[in-house]
Amino acid sequence: MRTEMITVETGTRPAVRDLTAQAQAFVAGEGDGLLHIFVPHATAGVAIIETGSGTEADLLRAVDELLPADDRWRHRHGSTGHGRDHVLPAVVAPYASVPVLQGQIMLGTWQSICLVDPNRDNPTRQVRFSFLPSS
Amino acid sequence: MRTEMITVETGTRPAVRDLTAQAQAFVAGEGDGLLHIFVPHATAGVAIIETGSGTEADLLRAVDELLPADDRWRHRHGSTGHGRDHVLPAVVAPYASVPVLQGQIMLGTWQSICLVDPNRDNPTRQVRFSFLPSS
Amino acid sequence: MRTEMITVETGTRPAVRDLTAQAQAFVAGEGDGLLHIFVPHATAGVAIIETGSGTEADLLRAVDELLPADDRWRHRHGSTGHGRDHVLPAVVAPYASVPVLQGQIMLGTWQSICLVDPNRDNPTRQVRFSFLPSS
Repeated sequence: MRTEMITVETGTRPAVRDLTAQAQAFVAGEGDGLLHIFVPHATAGVAIIETGSGTEADLLRAVDELLPADDRWRHRHGSTGHGRDHVLPAVVAPYASVPVLQGQIMLGTWQSICLVDPNRDNPTRQVRFSFLPSS
Repeated sequence: MRTEMITVETGTRPAVRDLTAQAQAFVAGEGDGLLHIFVPHATAGVAIIETGSGTEADLLRAVDELLPADDRWRHRHGSTGHGRDHVLPAVVAPYASVPVLQGQIMLGTWQSICLVDPNRDNPTRQVRFSFLPSS
Repeated sequence: MRTEMITVETGTRPAVRDLTAQAQAFVAGEGDGLLHIFVPHATAGVAIIETGSGTEADLLRAVDELLPADDRWRHRHGSTGHGRDHVLPAVVAPYASVPVLQGQIMLGTWQSICLVDPNRDNPTRQVRFSFLPSS
């Protein structure tokens, strides 16, 4: 299985980062199979959404409303509200998978593969791409 | 990799459509492997839930409560509230995967594979089934 | 495809159970590929979160707040509020997948694979592990 870790800068504020170009580059030249995206962190997730039209901000606001970054959380390491960052991956899972045909990711026109990182404490993240070829 | 696109009519109101029969038909005759379901749209998701006992309506109501279709969203294309349709796939992901053994999807008794489409503006959807055989 | 069902006791109260040790034991001795975790139940999900620092309780509380276990649900089988247990898998999906390299699950340091079971009525659950080797 071909696999690769990339490094993504997410800064010290909640962030959504578009990984589509890097994902497409990773599978270029492959045949058919499944692209698997995995974030080896307990406070980030992967979402497949449209980018560039406001949805990144809408998603982060929805996360703030549904999982407020206040002192309600039992998990209390890190900054205030960091406990909610640990609940996020139960809702925005830390993996995604997308079909690949002849080295092309079969995303829809308006879809992008994004890293969702509400965490203020970890400005640098790793993301693992894996390609599972069809036998 | 065997892969196929199907067309699903979801109409002009939020809808949940059961795809289980079509998914089972797609893998019939295969051996062991993974069935992958992918929706190439930025405003729909896939959920594995029970159907026929009210959960479809419960899910759509929960989506309306958690992500209200009002004018709060920065993404403003389409009908009022369409911005929330774009946040949905971060929560109800546009993919799912289910084990297949000897051409049978290994769903539990009460599970169905469903397309979740809150979007009023796109009455017709595509769904991609892919079968990744075990080597 | 090597696949195996394990039995997990979740009791009669909402519970999060860490399956990481069993998942790692399942893939030990394998090469590279994808570990697939699947819960064949309509009222439970799989989450990849940190355990042992309060997040299990935080997650169950968030589920109670976002999907209250009251009489609002149309699905009315089982205990009061059981309808919300049926909505849970749309948000906390009943599957997850994680890359495996040389028989090691590639989880991050703080990640655990967990069964999330809000359902009071089913104290015993099944979970299916499958290993899809890379061809």
